[in-house]
Amino acid sequence: MTHRIDRHSEGVFIIAATPFGKDGALDLDSTDRMIDFYLDCGVMGITILGIMGEAPKLSGEETLAFARHVLNRVGNRIPVVVGVSGAGLDNMARLSHEVMEVGAAGVMVAPMPGLATEAKLKGYFGQVCAALGPDVPICLQDYPQTTGVQFSVETILTLTRDHPQIVMLKHEDWPGLTKLSRVRAESGTGDTPRMSILVGNAALFLPQEIQRGADGAMTGFAYPEMLVQVVERHKAGDVDGAEDLFDAYLPMVRYEQQLGIGLAIRKEILHRRGVIGSPKVRAPGPALTARDHEELTRLMARLDRKLEALG
Amino acid sequence: MTHRIDRHSEGVFIIAATPFGKDGALDLDSTDRMIDFYLDCGVMGITILGIMGEAPKLSGEETLAFARHVLNRVGNRIPVVVGVSGAGLDNMARLSHEVMEVGAAGVMVAPMPGLATEAKLKGYFGQVCAALGPDVPICLQDYPQTTGVQFSVETILTLTRDHPQIVMLKHEDWPGLTKLSRVRAESGTGDTPRMSILVGNAALFLPQEIQRGADGAMTGFAYPEMLVQVVERHKAGDVDGAEDLFDAYLPMVRYEQQLGIGLAIRKEILHRRGVIGSPKVRAPGPALTARDHEELTRLMARLDRKLEALG
Amino acid sequence: MTHRIDRHSEGVFIIAATPFGKDGALDLDSTDRMIDFYLDCGVMGITILGIMGEAPKLSGEETLAFARHVLNRVGNRIPVVVGVSGAGLDNMARLSHEVMEVGAAGVMVAPMPGLATEAKLKGYFGQVCAALGPDVPICLQDYPQTTGVQFSVETILTLTRDHPQIVMLKHEDWPGLTKLSRVRAESGTGDTPRMSILVGNAALFLPQEIQRGADGAMTGFAYPEMLVQVVERHKAGDVDGAEDLFDAYLPMVRYEQQLGIGLAIRKEILHRRGVIGSPKVRAPGPALTARDHEELTRLMARLDRKLEALG
Amino acid sequence: MTHRIDRHSEGVFIIAATPFGKDGALDLDSTDRMIDFYLDCGVMGITILGIMGEAPKLSGEETLAFARHVLNRVGNRIPVVVGVSGAGLDNMARLSHEVMEVGAAGVMVAPMPGLATEAKLKGYFGQVCAALGPDVPICLQDYPQTTGVQFSVETILTLTRDHPQIVMLKHEDWPGLTKLSRVRAESGTGDTPRMSILVGNAALFLPQEIQRGADGAMTGFAYPEMLVQVVERHKAGDVDGAEDLFDAYLPMVRYEQQLGIGLAIRKEILHRRGVIGSPKVRAPGPALTARDHEELTRLMARLDRKLEALG
Repeated sequence: MTHRIDRHSEGVFIIAATPFGKDGALDLDSTDRMIDFYLDCGVMGITILGIMGEAPKLSGEETLAFARHVLNRVGNRIPVVVGVSGAGLDNMARLSHEVMEVGAAGVMVAPMPGLATEAKLKGYFGQVCAALGPDVPICLQDYPQTTGVQFSVETILTLTRDHPQIVMLKHEDWPGLTKLSRVRAESGTGDTPRMSILVGNAALFLPQEIQRGADGAMTGFAYPEMLVQVVERHKAGDVDGAEDLFDAYLPMVRYEQQLGIGLAIRKEILHRRGVIGSPKVRAPGPALTARDHEELTRLMARLDRKLEALG
Repeated sequence: MTHRIDRHSEGVFIIAATPFGKDGALDLDSTDRMIDFYLDCGVMGITILGIMGEAPKLSGEETLAFARHVLNRVGNRIPVVVGVSGAGLDNMARLSHEVMEVGAAGVMVAPMPGLATEAKLKGYFGQVCAALGPDVPICLQDYPQTTGVQFSVETILTLTRDHPQIVMLKHEDWPGLTKLSRVRAESGTGDTPRMSILVGNAALFLPQEIQRGADGAMTGFAYPEMLVQVVERHKAGDVDGAEDLFDAYLPMVRYEQQLGIGLAIRKEILHRRGVIGSPKVRAPGPALTARDHEELTRLMARLDRKLEALG
Repeated sequence: MTHRIDRHSEGVFIIAATPFGKDGALDLDSTDRMIDFYLDCGVMGITILGIMGEAPKLSGEETLAFARHVLNRVGNRIPVVVGVSGAGLDNMARLSHEVMEVGAAGVMVAPMPGLATEAKLKGYFGQVCAALGPDVPICLQDYPQTTGVQFSVETILTLTRDHPQIVMLKHEDWPGLTKLSRVRAESGTGDTPRMSILVGNAALFLPQEIQRGADGAMTGFAYPEMLVQVVERHKAGDVDGAEDLFDAYLPMVRYEQQLGIGLAIRKEILHRRGVIGSPKVRAPGPALTARDHEELTRLMARLDRKLEALG
Repeated sequence: MTHRIDRHSEGVFIIAATPFGKDGALDLDSTDRMIDFYLDCGVMGITILGIMGEAPKLSGEETLAFARHVLNRVGNRIPVVVGVSGAGLDNMARLSHEVMEVGAAGVMVAPMPGLATEAKLKGYFGQVCAALGPDVPICLQDYPQTTGVQFSVETILTLTRDHPQIVMLKHEDWPGLTKLSRVRAESGTGDTPRMSILVGNAALFLPQEIQRGADGAMTGFAYPEMLVQVVERHKAGDVDGAEDLFDAYLPMVRYEQQLGIGLAIRKEILHRRGVIGSPKVRAPGPALTARDHEELTRLMARLDRKLEALG
């Protein structure tokens, strides 16, 4: 398989939703449409079964069926990363090996709650790497708003130095701009190998983060075309153009970045854009009120007008 | 099935460990021995797959296999409660129905992290009860040290009033003595039905809690015979005798009550007592140092001497 | 004093910084300049010694000296709210009475950490109201990102119903749009009196919140003129104009909204705008890197260009 | 002043309550009686204004008045440590210098909430040490149950190595036995200087901790004579005798160790023993119910009987 993630992976890795039908069952037709939509948007990778992908609400069978289906649809075109975080290492190792065998490019691991010291984090990721084996590339997810676990820059660098398979950082600490600058400056130097850094946190600081050296984004914004263009324009040297485009979308980025309810908003937009058949979120999960629907309609219309004005 | 838990359930419901072999596989022979041991100790019920039962570290298949095996071994003798807490209601409902079909007496549900208001708790348990259906009796687990979720007395009473199937409280808030007194006094009065109250938190306050009206204990102390006798002596009116016996064990109760490492201690004692074949805890999990082993040896010897002195 | 806050208070209450000199001492000259600046911006109120006002880093003497100085400078022109949150009710009552005597319009109270149930919150605010006495109007601060305490809509309504002196809600729960809609709809009806609702959380959702019925904002954005105009345009019915103006500032709103470091950014902007003599933050506190300074320069320049383009 | 704490301090440092009259005012007569009581019990040090000493509920004037009074009463007899933790370094430095000038032996510092990485802890204690100056000995308080901050062994050792003035560890992490063993083994070796280790957490594991190398205890148990004798018997080699005595008190140790309510229990016992004039706790604070009072009476009577039986 040629598409393993590595220390130079870049571009937009879209975090995929997990589409359900109105009855709550996995909707694989919508999944196909969604994958095609992401590919059309120009994403360079896809991440499935992340924290926002409702992974803990799937059964073991559904998890594997969904992963296989996505990997099959994507084929060899772009790398697919699979979220495997969970409470037990046996389960994590089993799932990781299953998805790697059918073509995954790597796995994403967030720390368990309660790993409150560097010593505990080093111990945990040592166990994780041993359980997965050295052939499974890992994207380290640094998302304290959800996990309650904080990584220092020093800890991140130590982990990537000690474990060659930890090649990528999903950076979504907040506030985290200085942290990103430091990981960029202090990895790829001396005995610390380079890390690929993809930013999350709903892309709320995407231009600043790219300007500080991020390699791309890994987030689930429902207008992936913006993420792709912002990254590309930066790459082409059009920094202000990139930021102008981003700013036009910023009211919506901010709206989607609402923890919890953001998932329902994201699925609703994908539904309105014709990508998925139903905005269904599995229980327990957030739901939009009538007022939220009106507000979203208004924000989508304002976005359209801004994009027209930008030309 | 005659052994459903109800609002008058009482006595000791032992929290069962999940025995693994040295290789980490489920050890069903040890499971049989453990069940027989618990029954010999005189417990009135068994709870499996609780927070301390390493439930999240089992695969879906193992979960069901273990539950079936225990239920089969116990037969109709005493009620078996199954922990079904988890992130998704579909998974919770499926597991609940599977175990009820093969003879479980009820399920235990702890709230998800993040349910930080009474309104959210009421919403969540409303969804849980709807998903399980009215025929599945529920033991509500109030364990803020682990879940981060706090119940007020008012919330507990509202839940048991609104949902006839919430019949039992596993009380392990800490400090929680006044809370227990209030639930005892304010349930079983007016329009609020009686709740069975079984105490957890490693039984650290068992005599005080029985004296305040608890119906029994639901915890995993590795000397279940003490729990049984303390409850029985209280019932027989021998309050000081009950407390004298408890106090002899208190140094060990305190030692086992250490969150996290307590599980390794508990399994080690069960192993030393010949109940389970290996003290193996699945990763990531706590491990005892050589110093811990010596300390435990010393504490076990001191306990033996005290029991001799008590006669 | 005519300027007590009440259930109909509206407009922008700016959260004032506490200016320090380079040596860390209170800078009362800058304080005067800052007050005049806020008044020139058209704010309808000022809040001092809030969580972002570095209140816990002042000595008791400094706290009182600063409050007196601000109240003296403002005179009778607009109401001044004083943050009095703290660990002990005696201290809270003493400070509240001292500032009310010299002309404060009310006090702002955030719950202590650990008040994790509605029952505890009701108990706490009952004690607070008793300690302050009924003549001190209270602004209830709902800011879980910092306090760790969550209020349900039901709890907020109960508190304002039970305590006539709780007249105002500083709404900064996040995500919180539906909560705001509900407090708006469910206060001022039946036996629940109207609450004034001012929004915080750095104004990240100001247009949506005004459209949902907020009475104004209480936050410390370093361009208060934007907050004032957005509120006024909404009042005048120019909803899209208000939102266009807001969106121009949104990249900066988002930048200032970074918890912790946001205070340093805010003070730096006020310093660059000539409002305060030094951007000094007392230790322990956040500091800007050279990279942050460049980034801020760029964002301020982009803002200027956008405002020019808006005309 | 000869009584500075240092790396070899040992014995029982009792955590003093702050006595209030029924009206809530500082009760300095009771303070005198309490100090004399502690001295009569044979304590080797006294710690005032700790987390359990209601420090945040005192005004600045009261804090200083109480500290001066205690220091004056104690005179040169034993060292007095003063808790100075708080949100601002200016306040911490001022209070530290004031109490050192009037004879304190050192200060105790707990980390602020939110210091969630080793890098942040090192930064914070670097600032603390710089603010206090090298002449103020520091006792590092490791109390995650209250602060939410966790120290690894590595962080503790780094701090004491980097800062010669950090001479003592108040160890009250839980579970924490292995941590204690490691700090004991890994300080006082190579380039890491020895630390004095005094244990807290209400002394719940005192014998185990002394056996693992702790130098003594720093906690507020209302029967300090037990703490003193347990430490002395260990020192004299009578390990089982020490533990027998401890076990007799263990039901009460466990009862006092209840976070929050424990302070009210402790003050009530000191009141019943004739040490302080009133069990008053300042608001907001815990209160005992009638049931709690009866339960305490029963536990105190059981303790008396056990001590008689021990001879």
